Amino acid sequence: MPLSEFELIQRFFSPTGCCREDVLLGVGDDCALLQIPSGENLAVSIDTLVEGVHFHPDVDPELLGHKALAVNLSDLAAMGAVPAWATLALTLPRSDSAWLASFMSGFFTLADRHQVQLVGGDTTRGPLTISVQVHGFVPPGKALTRHTARAGDRIGVTGTLGDAGLALQQMAAVKPTSRYLRERLERPLPRLETGLALRGLANAAIDISDGLLADLGHICRRSGVGARLELQRLPLSVEVAEHVKKSGEWSLPLTAGDDYELCFSVPPARCQQAEAALGSLDGGLTWIGLIEQEPGVRCFGQDGCRIETGTGGYQHFQSAD
Amino acid sequence: MPLSEFELIQRFFSPTGCCREDVLLGVGDDCALLQIPSGENLAVSIDTLVEGVHFHPDVDPELLGHKALAVNLSDLAAMGAVPAWATLALTLPRSDSAWLASFMSGFFTLADRHQVQLVGGDTTRGPLTISVQVHGFVPPGKALTRHTARAGDRIGVTGTLGDAGLALQQMAAVKPTSRYLRERLERPLPRLETGLALRGLANAAIDISDGLLADLGHICRRSGVGARLELQRLPLSVEVAEHVKKSGEWSLPLTAGDDYELCFSVPPARCQQAEAALGSLDGGLTWIGLIEQEPGVRCFGQDGCRIETGTGGYQHFQSAD
Repeated sequence: MPLSEFELIQRFFSPTGCCREDVLLGVGDDCALLQIPSGENLAVSIDTLVEGVHFHPDVDPELLGHKALAVNLSDLAAMGAVPAWATLALTLPRSDSAWLASFMSGFFTLADRHQVQLVGGDTTRGPLTISVQVHGFVPPGKALTRHTARAGDRIGVTGTLGDAGLALQQMAAVKPTSRYLRERLERPLPRLETGLALRGLANAAIDISDGLLADLGHICRRSGVGARLELQRLPLSVEVAEHVKKSGEWSLPLTAGDDYELCFSVPPARCQQAEAALGSLDGGLTWIGLIEQEPGVRCFGQDGCRIETGTGGYQHFQSAD
Repeated sequence: MPLSEFELIQRFFSPTGCCREDVLLGVGDDCALLQIPSGENLAVSIDTLVEGVHFHPDVDPELLGHKALAVNLSDLAAMGAVPAWATLALTLPRSDSAWLASFMSGFFTLADRHQVQLVGGDTTRGPLTISVQVHGFVPPGKALTRHTARAGDRIGVTGTLGDAGLALQQMAAVKPTSRYLRERLERPLPRLETGLALRGLANAAIDISDGLLADLGHICRRSGVGARLELQRLPLSVEVAEHVKKSGEWSLPLTAGDDYELCFSVPPARCQQAEAALGSLDGGLTWIGLIEQEPGVRCFGQDGCRIETGTGGYQHFQSAD
C-alpha cells in the first residue's frame, strides 16, 4: 500500500511521548504555533545529514534518528540553551515503514529524554537527506557565543577527543571497532547540562563538530584572538592515546570531526567555579590551553616546543570553485 | 579555489538587506538568538525542494531561490502570521559561486520585500536539496488553522487555480508556455496580506500547494466536516479555462499542485467583510462552495449535477510500502 504524506504523519511523526504545554499547535497544520516563555530569547539551529557524506547507506536507522537530533541539540548545548522543540525535514528515496519506524524511534527516544517535542516537518521524495531544526530558550545576555573569548581565558573541553574519528577510520578499513568507539561515533550525547552549567562562567563556547582546531579557530577568528594548546593535556580515550603514540601524530584529536564535545573559554577568576560545576557532569572538564592576543591556534608538545599541525578541520567542499 | 563553509557564509549568506532589531545574533554562531515580541506566538514551518522532484536541474537558480522561500512564506500566509526570520539548509553537489550568488539573490530579494532576515543555516555536500524554515508572529487566538471550519461556512480562494500545473504540463511537453504561466509556476507570490486580512474573519485556512481537492480535503478531515464545490465558480486564467473546455475535465484546477493560493472558510455573517477586506488585495477573493456536515469533498457542474473527480492531489510517495 502506498503511504500518503498524511498517513506518514499519522503513523510516524505524531509524538507519543513528550507533549509540551507551550506547543499550541503541533504537527499537521500549515505551521506549528509555539509560545516562548516570557522574558526568554529563542535559540535556533538547523543541521543536515546527507547519505554517503555524513553517514553510510547501511547505518542502523535508529542510530541515525538519534544522531540527526543529537548533532542539533549539541548546538543548543554550545549556546547554553534549554531545548524545547524540533522540526524535521526528511527526504526519503522511498516510503519504507520499517526504516521510518526505527528512525523515528531513535529520534523520539532522545527527544523525550530532553523534553523536546517534534512540532512540524516536511517529507519529500529524493536522495536520503535529513535536516533537523531545534529551538531552545536562553535568558537575555546569558547565551554562550563564539565572539566573546578574551586573551587570558583558559580553554576547556568536555569528554575525549578523536573517538568518532578513530571509529570512522577503523570501520572504513573494515577493522574491528570497540563498542565504546562505535557508540561515540553513532550515538553522541549532546552536552546540554554542561552548556547550562557554563552560563555566567564561560566567556565563549562552541561544539566540536568539525574538529578541535577548526572549531576553536572559529572562536578565535570571531573573537579577534588566538589560542595556545598543550597537546599533552588533550583528553584522550585509551584507544586514541594508543593511536597517537603509534602514529606519532595528533590529527585524530585535533582535526577529526563528529565528537560533539564542547570547547569553551573561561576567565581565570571563574575557572575554579567551572571545575566545581562541571566536575560532577558527564564529560567533566579538562583544561587544554589558553586564549592569547596573537591570532591563530598554536600547538605545543610536552617539551614546550611548537608542533606544526596543519589547519585541519572537516571541509564540506573540496572541489574547485 | 575551494570555498570553505566559513567563506560560503561570508560571501553568500550574510544578509545585505533586511537587518531586524529582534535578531540578537544572526548567521555564524552555533545558534541564532531571536527575540519574540511580547504577547505574540511563534509560527514556524519547514519545507523542502528536491532537484528532479520539485524542480528541473536546469532551472534558473534565481527563480529557485525565490521559490524556496516563497513556498514557506505561503505557509505563514495560510496561518495569518507576519513573517520575521528564515533559516536555510542547503545541500549542494559542488561549490558553484555563480549558481549560489544567483540563488541567494532570488532568496534575498523576496526576503527583503517581506522584511524577512536569514538568521542561520547549514551548507552540506550532496544531491541538490533545499530546506527553508520560516518563523513568524501571530497574536494568541488569531491564527488561521485547518481544524476550525464549520458547516455553513462559505469557501473562498485567492487568485486563479491550475496555472502552475498547466505551465508544468506544457514545459514537460516542450510546448510554448506564456510568460504569465511560467511566472505562476516559477515565481509564486505568497498571499501574506490576504492571510493577515483574514484574521478574525475566516474560520479556517490552508495554502493550496498539493491541489485544491487535497488541501480543502485537509481542512475538511481535520474539521470533521465536508465541502461542496461549484466547479463553474472556480477562478481560472484564460489559458486554464481553455484547457478545461478543450479537455472536458477539471484535473488542472482541482488537483495540480504548486499554486500557493489560499483556500479558506468564512461564516456567512462575515462574508461581506471578507469581500471588502480582500477586494483590493492581489489575488482578490472568489467564493467557490460551501462547507457541509457530510464528510468528503463533492464537486457540482453548472447544471447542479455531481461530477466525479477522483481524490486527486499531489502524493509524495507512490511506491509500494
